[in-house]
Amino acid sequence: MKVTVIVTLKPTVLDPQGNAIQRNLETAGISGVTDVRQGKYFEVEVSDAVGASERRVLIERLARDVLTNPVIESYRIEWE
Amino acid sequence: MKVTVIVTLKPTVLDPQGNAIQRNLETAGISGVTDVRQGKYFEVEVSDAVGASERRVLIERLARDVLTNPVIESYRIEWE
Repeated sequence: MKVTVIVTLKPTVLDPQGNAIQRNLETAGISGVTDVRQGKYFEVEVSDAVGASERRVLIERLARDVLTNPVIESYRIEWE
Repeated sequence: MKVTVIVTLKPTVLDPQGNAIQRNLETAGISGVTDVRQGKYFEVEVSDAVGASERRVLIERLARDVLTNPVIESYRIEWE
């Protein structure tokens, strides 16, 4: 079963990479974009041998303890 | 107006970073995850002065020409 985890910077955290993209858009002839923020996107495949409730705990742990730096990032899980 | 662009590796392209995460999960006591693939996630803010059809063209160009490497990646746009 496939689950998606999206990790984004907290709103109060600066995103220099996103800012650099936004500033360079004018050079590429693209105007009208006022802000770009970059996050991470993970497609996670869980074995079908793992039960539904166990899967929930597993993915929560994966997202919280492995994929996210809780000081500057937050995560969201999309169950498909 | 906020638009989300998600850039993922094409299915045929190897993802060493995702593989490394997957292999190290056992060490973190998380088992049952058979595959992890990492992509990029962009939250893009477009000026309200840009009309709806112009915005469509703008975001398509941003996604296709700036955020995606068409040789190894594909993109998907989520209009909110």
